[in-house]
Amino acid sequence: MTSVPATAAGTLARDTAAGTKRVLTGYRPTGPLHLGHWAGNIETMLRLQRDPGYECFFFIADWHMLTTHYDRTDELPGFVEELVLDWLAAGLDPERAVIYRQSDLPEVAEMALLLGMITPLGWLERVPSFKERLRDMSERDVANLGLLGYPVLQTVDISIVGGELVPVGEDQVAHLELSREIVRRFNRLYGDVLVEPQPLLSQTPLIPGSDGRKMSKSLDNAIGVRDEEDLIRAKVRSFVTDPQKLRLGDPGRPEICPVFALHRKFSPDDVDRIERTCRTGELGCVECKGILADHVVAAFAGFRQRRSELAATTGLAAEILAAGAEHVRPVASATLANVRAAMHLG
Amino acid sequence: MTSVPATAAGTLARDTAAGTKRVLTGYRPTGPLHLGHWAGNIETMLRLQRDPGYECFFFIADWHMLTTHYDRTDELPGFVEELVLDWLAAGLDPERAVIYRQSDLPEVAEMALLLGMITPLGWLERVPSFKERLRDMSERDVANLGLLGYPVLQTVDISIVGGELVPVGEDQVAHLELSREIVRRFNRLYGDVLVEPQPLLSQTPLIPGSDGRKMSKSLDNAIGVRDEEDLIRAKVRSFVTDPQKLRLGDPGRPEICPVFALHRKFSPDDVDRIERTCRTGELGCVECKGILADHVVAAFAGFRQRRSELAATTGLAAEILAAGAEHVRPVASATLANVRAAMHLG
Repeated sequence: MTSVPATAAGTLARDTAAGTKRVLTGYRPTGPLHLGHWAGNIETMLRLQRDPGYECFFFIADWHMLTTHYDRTDELPGFVEELVLDWLAAGLDPERAVIYRQSDLPEVAEMALLLGMITPLGWLERVPSFKERLRDMSERDVANLGLLGYPVLQTVDISIVGGELVPVGEDQVAHLELSREIVRRFNRLYGDVLVEPQPLLSQTPLIPGSDGRKMSKSLDNAIGVRDEEDLIRAKVRSFVTDPQKLRLGDPGRPEICPVFALHRKFSPDDVDRIERTCRTGELGCVECKGILADHVVAAFAGFRQRRSELAATTGLAAEILAAGAEHVRPVASATLANVRAAMHLG
Repeated sequence: MTSVPATAAGTLARDTAAGTKRVLTGYRPTGPLHLGHWAGNIETMLRLQRDPGYECFFFIADWHMLTTHYDRTDELPGFVEELVLDWLAAGLDPERAVIYRQSDLPEVAEMALLLGMITPLGWLERVPSFKERLRDMSERDVANLGLLGYPVLQTVDISIVGGELVPVGEDQVAHLELSREIVRRFNRLYGDVLVEPQPLLSQTPLIPGSDGRKMSKSLDNAIGVRDEEDLIRAKVRSFVTDPQKLRLGDPGRPEICPVFALHRKFSPDDVDRIERTCRTGELGCVECKGILADHVVAAFAGFRQRRSELAATTGLAAEILAAGAEHVRPVASATLANVRAAMHLG
């Protein structure tokens, strides 16, 4: 153990800090992080962790991964380990946030069973992301009970640690609303036991991939945060641009160009000049992509350096997760005990 | 502790007995036992427990109770305690069977979450008893996720203790077949981990209630095993009989008479004479019901005596369940560990 401490004991003091809000966010370990995750999740988590007003719970949602990837669990241990190391290299700090794995909390499974008993099927069948996921996986396999029950499990993830705030994008507010409804229904049936979580709206820029659609591993259009320099450059070169800008001198429309969308994120000091010279036609796409690749490579150089140092420490991820589990289990146990008592169970 | 031992240690020796089959059956604690349960469940359990070829696991399915009774959990602790005492008074013996409560096994909840991830929604939506239950509760409330997931939880109840045989009536074979399908799907995806349970067909007589329909607490047509003599007599008097037999002398049709159905069960030495004299008209319904009431009262006199003795021992039910939990948890833990390992989960 070098820069990363083995225990998260530092957060204990913060548990009792007056006025802090408990915030929770999780991540499904379905593969390597890409730039879209970075801009969408990691930067939000770093911001929350730095803010003394928040007590952060960051978890790896390995059970959620099963809702769509149940037939690929052989990849799971590797994905979990790599995600922990990615988080640490990105600067997530077990001294400032509780970092843990969902499946280390059997209490979550039991509470999910209990909350499932009071969650109307209709509420779950109407969830838009259920229909989206159904469509995503329709060619591969059927939908399972776990997929339908996803929002219940998510509600438990939040409630079992008393999560007060959940960072969500505009499009996920409706999803969190379902968790709030389940919590309200529980409290109405059994008494005021669970905290009703609130959305913490985060403006995350939409990061397009090489084909102009939202960057996504499954669309094979992503630049990974761990990609080597050569691969980053090759991927940036493969990006589509304004189809009306065919050669140097043609005026471009930055507002429809995915390369420009990435410039906004990764070339903040250069973005005005790039926009202007793209419009005039002065800046060609080849050069423009070269500038972006330089910035992306530079942005992740420190990350890649730290990441390879961390990977050299055998067992680091397991150690971090064990410490996180030790930290969060008493919280989860206490909530479950309250839930059981309220339901007259044992 | 008098006749009932505090621990079920006796079964340990039987765990290793060669050639024994592990058999499992459970019961939802939704209210007092009645004669229909007695003839349908208790007698089967007593027979299994006496047979050295079986290793018996008898459990109280309190989580299952929530699938339909989630808004009546205040009744649950009382129902659980009374069911344990009823079982003991009936002769179920913790020296011969592991007697435990479902919710004492958090491993069941976790394994249910995992099996839910591989159980197609279509399989569950097609279960006839799901539709029946939907209809049963349609007036009271909506159906919840737990109701749909019932067969998954049931599959876990069986598999987690390595249940090889499950006593079922003809009408439940299809239900067990779903558990077998879930087990096969798990084994196909992750390797040969779970035991595929087989049905143990039991011929249980259909016990009608006072209105001629199947005896059921919810139809308010039941004679409880703990009913006092006067109440038993009053309830037997209220039974419908052959509507063509209006007065003494009218010939009756025993084959359509619910009172005669109970005679078959409770008046074995007298049943031929009763059938004959009913048909001739010689035996009137009032007298016939008096004979039945005598037999039912006599059949449960010993039970009621033992039951009230057991009730005098404070904390007996809790003690029995604690001992059962201690016994069954290592079995459940071992299965869950195998399941997790097969799925590459930590």
